[in-house]
Amino acid sequence: MVRVAVAGATGYAGGELLRLLLGHSEVEIGALTAGSSAGQRLGEVHPHLTPLADRVIEGTTVESLAGHDVVFLALPHGHSAALAAQLPDTVTVIDCGADFRLRDESDWTTFYDTPYAGAWAYGLPELPVGGGRQRDALVGTGHIAVPGCYPTAVSLALAPGFAAGLLDPADVVVVAASGTSGAGKSLKPHLLGAEVMGAMSPYGVGGGHRHTPEIEQNLTAASGADGSQVRVSFTPTLAPMPRGIIATCTARLRQGASGADAAGIREAWAKAYADEPFVHLLPEGQWPSTASVLGSNCVHVQVTFDERAGRVIAVAAVDNLTKGTAGAAVQCMNLALGLPETTGLPVAGVAP
Amino acid sequence: MVRVAVAGATGYAGGELLRLLLGHSEVEIGALTAGSSAGQRLGEVHPHLTPLADRVIEGTTVESLAGHDVVFLALPHGHSAALAAQLPDTVTVIDCGADFRLRDESDWTTFYDTPYAGAWAYGLPELPVGGGRQRDALVGTGHIAVPGCYPTAVSLALAPGFAAGLLDPADVVVVAASGTSGAGKSLKPHLLGAEVMGAMSPYGVGGGHRHTPEIEQNLTAASGADGSQVRVSFTPTLAPMPRGIIATCTARLRQGASGADAAGIREAWAKAYADEPFVHLLPEGQWPSTASVLGSNCVHVQVTFDERAGRVIAVAAVDNLTKGTAGAAVQCMNLALGLPETTGLPVAGVAP
Amino acid sequence: MVRVAVAGATGYAGGELLRLLLGHSEVEIGALTAGSSAGQRLGEVHPHLTPLADRVIEGTTVESLAGHDVVFLALPHGHSAALAAQLPDTVTVIDCGADFRLRDESDWTTFYDTPYAGAWAYGLPELPVGGGRQRDALVGTGHIAVPGCYPTAVSLALAPGFAAGLLDPADVVVVAASGTSGAGKSLKPHLLGAEVMGAMSPYGVGGGHRHTPEIEQNLTAASGADGSQVRVSFTPTLAPMPRGIIATCTARLRQGASGADAAGIREAWAKAYADEPFVHLLPEGQWPSTASVLGSNCVHVQVTFDERAGRVIAVAAVDNLTKGTAGAAVQCMNLALGLPETTGLPVAGVAP
Amino acid sequence: MVRVAVAGATGYAGGELLRLLLGHSEVEIGALTAGSSAGQRLGEVHPHLTPLADRVIEGTTVESLAGHDVVFLALPHGHSAALAAQLPDTVTVIDCGADFRLRDESDWTTFYDTPYAGAWAYGLPELPVGGGRQRDALVGTGHIAVPGCYPTAVSLALAPGFAAGLLDPADVVVVAASGTSGAGKSLKPHLLGAEVMGAMSPYGVGGGHRHTPEIEQNLTAASGADGSQVRVSFTPTLAPMPRGIIATCTARLRQGASGADAAGIREAWAKAYADEPFVHLLPEGQWPSTASVLGSNCVHVQVTFDERAGRVIAVAAVDNLTKGTAGAAVQCMNLALGLPETTGLPVAGVAP
Repeated sequence: MVRVAVAGATGYAGGELLRLLLGHSEVEIGALTAGSSAGQRLGEVHPHLTPLADRVIEGTTVESLAGHDVVFLALPHGHSAALAAQLPDTVTVIDCGADFRLRDESDWTTFYDTPYAGAWAYGLPELPVGGGRQRDALVGTGHIAVPGCYPTAVSLALAPGFAAGLLDPADVVVVAASGTSGAGKSLKPHLLGAEVMGAMSPYGVGGGHRHTPEIEQNLTAASGADGSQVRVSFTPTLAPMPRGIIATCTARLRQGASGADAAGIREAWAKAYADEPFVHLLPEGQWPSTASVLGSNCVHVQVTFDERAGRVIAVAAVDNLTKGTAGAAVQCMNLALGLPETTGLPVAGVAP
Repeated sequence: MVRVAVAGATGYAGGELLRLLLGHSEVEIGALTAGSSAGQRLGEVHPHLTPLADRVIEGTTVESLAGHDVVFLALPHGHSAALAAQLPDTVTVIDCGADFRLRDESDWTTFYDTPYAGAWAYGLPELPVGGGRQRDALVGTGHIAVPGCYPTAVSLALAPGFAAGLLDPADVVVVAASGTSGAGKSLKPHLLGAEVMGAMSPYGVGGGHRHTPEIEQNLTAASGADGSQVRVSFTPTLAPMPRGIIATCTARLRQGASGADAAGIREAWAKAYADEPFVHLLPEGQWPSTASVLGSNCVHVQVTFDERAGRVIAVAAVDNLTKGTAGAAVQCMNLALGLPETTGLPVAGVAP
Repeated sequence: MVRVAVAGATGYAGGELLRLLLGHSEVEIGALTAGSSAGQRLGEVHPHLTPLADRVIEGTTVESLAGHDVVFLALPHGHSAALAAQLPDTVTVIDCGADFRLRDESDWTTFYDTPYAGAWAYGLPELPVGGGRQRDALVGTGHIAVPGCYPTAVSLALAPGFAAGLLDPADVVVVAASGTSGAGKSLKPHLLGAEVMGAMSPYGVGGGHRHTPEIEQNLTAASGADGSQVRVSFTPTLAPMPRGIIATCTARLRQGASGADAAGIREAWAKAYADEPFVHLLPEGQWPSTASVLGSNCVHVQVTFDERAGRVIAVAAVDNLTKGTAGAAVQCMNLALGLPETTGLPVAGVAP
Repeated sequence: MVRVAVAGATGYAGGELLRLLLGHSEVEIGALTAGSSAGQRLGEVHPHLTPLADRVIEGTTVESLAGHDVVFLALPHGHSAALAAQLPDTVTVIDCGADFRLRDESDWTTFYDTPYAGAWAYGLPELPVGGGRQRDALVGTGHIAVPGCYPTAVSLALAPGFAAGLLDPADVVVVAASGTSGAGKSLKPHLLGAEVMGAMSPYGVGGGHRHTPEIEQNLTAASGADGSQVRVSFTPTLAPMPRGIIATCTARLRQGASGADAAGIREAWAKAYADEPFVHLLPEGQWPSTASVLGSNCVHVQVTFDERAGRVIAVAAVDNLTKGTAGAAVQCMNLALGLPETTGLPVAGVAP
């Protein structure tokens, strides 16, 4: 059995990690650590994790995390680097935060307010890169940065088009909506239930959201060596639901590209995901819904070409806490340890 | 007192009309008509309309509608033309359906499956057209077509930019989300509560939604005589809330246009709505939320320039049933009859 | 015009007061005061109150509240007494808090942790008391305590039965559900949107909720001089909606009481509310829904006799912020000032 | 591998059965049958069941159901008996409908409109009966009637008290709330999303709900040979969430019963569920929430004694589709086949 610890067990990402690990046949759940909740029963914080209700939360220290094969970090952005530096090299560390996602220091500096910590292997196995998949970089790796939830949805929606050279990198527009667990457990008035229900509102509009450079990094990588830097207009929206992301992504066809028509588009997307266990291109005419992937590690994708407007429209739905965070983290752990990639990861959503 | 009838009183638009008319000081509510519900108490269908609970629903006939100064039509698309043709010329007829909205017969034929009925005065008073406002065409008019809910939000979000010549008509991308009352009361499985809650899903993707040509018609009109035809990539989304539309609208700046910068954009929007009683440009940094306009006739608008992506992003929030349908209808009635435009129309939302 | 101030304008009760006062023809809105938000624009706190968006919030002081005819107090429990003591006698003071609701000091001491401040005229006009109505005690009164939201719903559901001597005071069971605005704007993890949506959970179970003695006080008062003290088992529940209370209230028939049968029950309830503008006994077979009273000052009531179980079941729906708090406060102000009782109070709900 | 068929695969119960069976290690999913949807891809009906998306729905016939070891019936009430009669005796049949739940023909006739079909082994393993558990009646059984969702929650909330002789059978009051999937997929206006969100409303009030006799049957059985017939006042409520039941159940203490105090109550409940894998008595002070059991087969229970009102209050939360229907069905199958009882049944909820 693989012995795992979760640092930051009391947040939404931590709770989802534990839910998935409870169903993982090869894993033994070790230390659950947190900051201010240390000493509490886990059942007070996560009453849905019934089998772990009587486990006591420990403080997040090198000592409490010692003796595990895998440590998941589910900490606020900017807290992973210092902790990771103190863990032994032999531990597989999987970071659900942003700290090690960006390869370009200036991107980091522009969007985050802590020192740049470097980049780890990026945990989006399905991303087409350089003729292969990002998966290849994850097998047997000791340090993995789990992607952001929006970048997962947006990148998987559009990557097949960039990988096939069909899309114009200069004019990508993305509008996405997320359930409010995406904002975490921070106690802010606009996240109160009474404010959230019935409310949809964009935020971080005008390029301000920290996931923008990560999306651009992924789509540029998918474009391959010949591709130009992809630029994305990204608008996230808070939606009145606990979980789920729906990303509506549009781009122009690349002028003169071969296969740049409705049939070519469909073929590119179908080929990209034909063998992926978690990414499903829906039958034509059926559009993704967040409800269909709730609690599952699946991504539902659909794409069409709007001839009237001259734009490709690709839509992806993910559960921001599962494939968008904790499910991806477990998938990365499986790859890192050489386990079957799908172990412990639900592929059916919880609906209705 | 103005005596009004509502044909199609049992649908969501009809119910909202009655809610607003109950608070309108110059109006007496006459016949309430419908199809299959004729003979029922209104309280069985709209229990929220407490003061009208004991009114009996009549059939929708020329006879039941006779003797009124104003007749509101809140019928399924394609049913208004035949009925309107039978009403006396002296009656002010305000149609909440799509039948008389489109000026281009080929647009109608492409998107609807009934014969083209022509175009009435278009009931979006705030739309800038030809140096003035669409309002001018509504004062004293006998036949008015109330705009669609999405076109109201999208047109008011972007019109100031087109009116000021700041936006490129060739590359407009709109992604909007609507509460499920926008789909009406039709009994379809995907509209059941259990399906809707927690679910976001796009529909009519790829140019298929009937509101697309109406949006293009409005933005082209706002562009003035020199403007080219505006083309819009429009993706609507169903959101887990009863009411409300949030429209995220982006366009490129028009190359070389004077004032095509952040300051010029703000000025254009501020000027466009400075004197409008229902359209409010929010202070910089505050973004519209559907919750803030629930039950009100207000439109909240915000705009910014994303320098990184080179796009203007304008967002509007409306209540699809109030300003998006029934509120607009009452506003049009006020203009048609020479009443103060704001009579009977709430400007504060019901929140939280 | 009556000049009114709202102390505690930034909470949910304060916001709802302002929404209603904006539609009140006899009122001019004066000072809006609060604690930590003083100096902010109201639009930052209550973006739905569009017409007041640019008003600046003042501190809650005797000075800022001076010069008004009416002062509404919408403060946390325990803060009203000190402030009220400093306001001139000529000011009509209407307290939305609990401070002056309970007539029995020991009830107060058992359930609240601040010193007992006494009791003001209790602002539930429709409550049958001593052959008349509580309304009589409110006309021309200078100090009124607005009822709690649950007590409003429960008292109006059951009072006709106690007033008619039909119900056994010893065995009343109430289970009620409230939208989360009932918990106010306090920043607690279990009130976050992601926690609230999809969640129903009881709280204050076992007699612990502070509204219990207030309910008992009202029902005992309705029972008249001969009535025994009513004892209530009251369980409140948090429901996944922003607003609304549904109270399911059951009691046994009083042994041997005349009229203690299905027909007698219906007659008692019908008679009790025949002339009430805001309380509506629904037609037999139609049950109240929170959605039907959203944003309105109406109470929907239904009652039946369950012969199988031998219990009367009465259900009431109110909007906790409107008739449950701010609407009641305005209704009380109308009575206190001799204005028509219904002025400025919506009777149609906002649905769907 | 056990080969299973699901008759009625397109409803909510059928969909949840398939979700659980996909995670069941000992099962192979055979025929999926339905009525009007026969011939469709399952992905059109249940897009969340990604691994089964391309399976084709067959008609519900004896032929399509042949060749399976287990047949689950998830049909509308009244349809199971005729079908079950045609299946071979060697097949294990587990009925999620009401047809075989009631042991008293007159109860059936009073509450249902089809002929009485008899009673099968009742599938609530945790119910204390006659010194043992209902589980004993299920091991190796060929025909099992899965309990109703409300009876599961209510029976498990109160049974320990009746089993221990602590509760008065004559005065049980239950108010429960259910997510709207409990009403099934029937296309009725009041189940539309726009109607449901923000709405709470009781239904079947006054003893009319069909689950009433089933609750009484269970609690009477738990009372043992000496117990009187239990009578329940049961009021169900529709709540604005897709799934989940919260049942607030109260009863008076039985006069003079030994252990009829707060400590005795706690002990009775603790003892009743100490060894149950799916029923969890929460620590004192923590109350069940529907959110904590979403998608899981767990029941969360809490109990207290309200000295002021003299009543025991017990609350249970279940997922109406999992432990309330499909999870119970799988649990029954495990017992019937001699598999470990918990196989394939999630014990962690999906939250937030």
